[in-house]
Amino acid sequence: MSETTATPAVRTVAVIGAGTIGLGWAALFASAGLRVRVNSRRPDAEKHVRAAFELYAASLPSGPADPEELASRLEFEPDVARAVEDADVVQENAPEDLALKQELFARIGAAAPARALLLSSTSTLLPDDLGAAMDDPSRLLVAHPFNPPHIVPLVEIVAGERTDRRAVDDAVAFYRGLGKTPVVLRRPVPGFVANRLQSALLRESIHLVREGVVSVAELDEIVTASIGARWAAVGPFRAFHLGGGPGGLRHWFEHLGAGLERSWAGLGDPPVDEATVATVLAQADEAFGARSYEELAAERDAVQNAVIAAAARARTAASPA
Amino acid sequence: MSETTATPAVRTVAVIGAGTIGLGWAALFASAGLRVRVNSRRPDAEKHVRAAFELYAASLPSGPADPEELASRLEFEPDVARAVEDADVVQENAPEDLALKQELFARIGAAAPARALLLSSTSTLLPDDLGAAMDDPSRLLVAHPFNPPHIVPLVEIVAGERTDRRAVDDAVAFYRGLGKTPVVLRRPVPGFVANRLQSALLRESIHLVREGVVSVAELDEIVTASIGARWAAVGPFRAFHLGGGPGGLRHWFEHLGAGLERSWAGLGDPPVDEATVATVLAQADEAFGARSYEELAAERDAVQNAVIAAAARARTAASPA
Repeated sequence: MSETTATPAVRTVAVIGAGTIGLGWAALFASAGLRVRVNSRRPDAEKHVRAAFELYAASLPSGPADPEELASRLEFEPDVARAVEDADVVQENAPEDLALKQELFARIGAAAPARALLLSSTSTLLPDDLGAAMDDPSRLLVAHPFNPPHIVPLVEIVAGERTDRRAVDDAVAFYRGLGKTPVVLRRPVPGFVANRLQSALLRESIHLVREGVVSVAELDEIVTASIGARWAAVGPFRAFHLGGGPGGLRHWFEHLGAGLERSWAGLGDPPVDEATVATVLAQADEAFGARSYEELAAERDAVQNAVIAAAARARTAASPA
Repeated sequence: MSETTATPAVRTVAVIGAGTIGLGWAALFASAGLRVRVNSRRPDAEKHVRAAFELYAASLPSGPADPEELASRLEFEPDVARAVEDADVVQENAPEDLALKQELFARIGAAAPARALLLSSTSTLLPDDLGAAMDDPSRLLVAHPFNPPHIVPLVEIVAGERTDRRAVDDAVAFYRGLGKTPVVLRRPVPGFVANRLQSALLRESIHLVREGVVSVAELDEIVTASIGARWAAVGPFRAFHLGGGPGGLRHWFEHLGAGLERSWAGLGDPPVDEATVATVLAQADEAFGARSYEELAAERDAVQNAVIAAAARARTAASPA
């Protein structure tokens, strides 16, 4: 990752909120050479962000960085209006509270330069709702990362009715320049795409654990050893296209299409009641409860970086010249 | 992969059927130094298997192999009874037709040594049904691979009511010795586990394409850039455990549990009608129709091997000593 991004106009990013998502973004932006102004009302914000940088510097996709050097690009500004007043990009990561975010974006819109991209990390709220209290929401977009945002490539970009098309292009260019994979949704939908897919798989996972077919640990092992590895390589449609053999997806639909609706009808729809949660938690405790959050998260980040880098290298090597 | 497997008693494997799955198993077994007897009624079986070995030798997880050396371990026997008569393991890969497989297993059971493991690659049939016409189905198990079986680690092991517990242990040891990841289901369920999870995700994928939220290509990109990479690293339960922060899955359920049932209720249940299939096929053609099956499959295999190897290395490096 170099300091020359695809949007050379971006030099200063205001990161609103210093929770897990805000901290991940801050580390990524700093690693790309951007000036990062953190807006947080925590009195210990600076100490808190520096501690996070110590951890995150080791797990940046571009390789380990010097946390001190990253931190040298940080500024702290507890006042939102002052935090955004000369920002080229604002990445908002406040709690998922619509009224709070509406009020925040009204203040951000009034104080930020007209050219600034206003990006919300929300995973649940829609851009038209977020901008309802703004005079001009034309530069406001949802830019939803996956956790941790400095590692997982995807950023879901969701525009509202009043969003300017140029803002969408600028957001795509901004994230591409950072090495991310922005994908623009063609229309807003609750939960966006990746979390809906995740939710669909989780429903069946909980069903199978609840029915005693597999344990929590076994289900996790099944996924990493099959569809996880597969979908890190190729998406589901391409995977099924190849599953159809030389006849492709057409052949696959002809052979299995009729069975699809039947197989969907057989999927589970478990209640999330006390007994179900207790079963899952007990098995989860047994599976990974003995290891600390920090240790498990560091392992996840290391393996995820390795997987993403290996897939990218192999894809480049295998793709036609 | 060396010739010393965890089950030293296994020297000869009879592979019943030389379709895609049978061929992948044959290549893997041969690469582990086993004698592989292919049972197929195709008059050109030998030519066909040798051609497949030319392709598969390059994509073995243990690294490229010499196709001639692999093929030197092959034998061909068009008669099922003779094919299995001194086999230590029988891996059956006939078409998914219950009557056909029942009759096949009755003949296999009568001809194979009593000690032989009888393993079916079926993805849809249950062990008690497969063994219904056998005198003694105690060594019969479902051992369902993912495609391609020489690359994807998972083997789902499903025992029936009359299966001997020792046969389960032997099957697990056999596949572990080959470097696979066998997971024993605690009870049989239609579709087993991984295909049910796949099916749940496909249902929502087709829904989102049908609703015009994303295209086929965009959905694939979203998955590889987020949940695919994530689930190649950690399974869904561990991922949500870490998504809950230091409070883990318990915190995650407390915060989002109430919203889970609501979010599940909002997931799609698309019809698989002509219009839906036509939409998916047209977008799939646009996404990858210009590239040949062979080229796309080779790329999938190369990327998948790279992902699996990178995840294993990173996991070993990160896990506690």
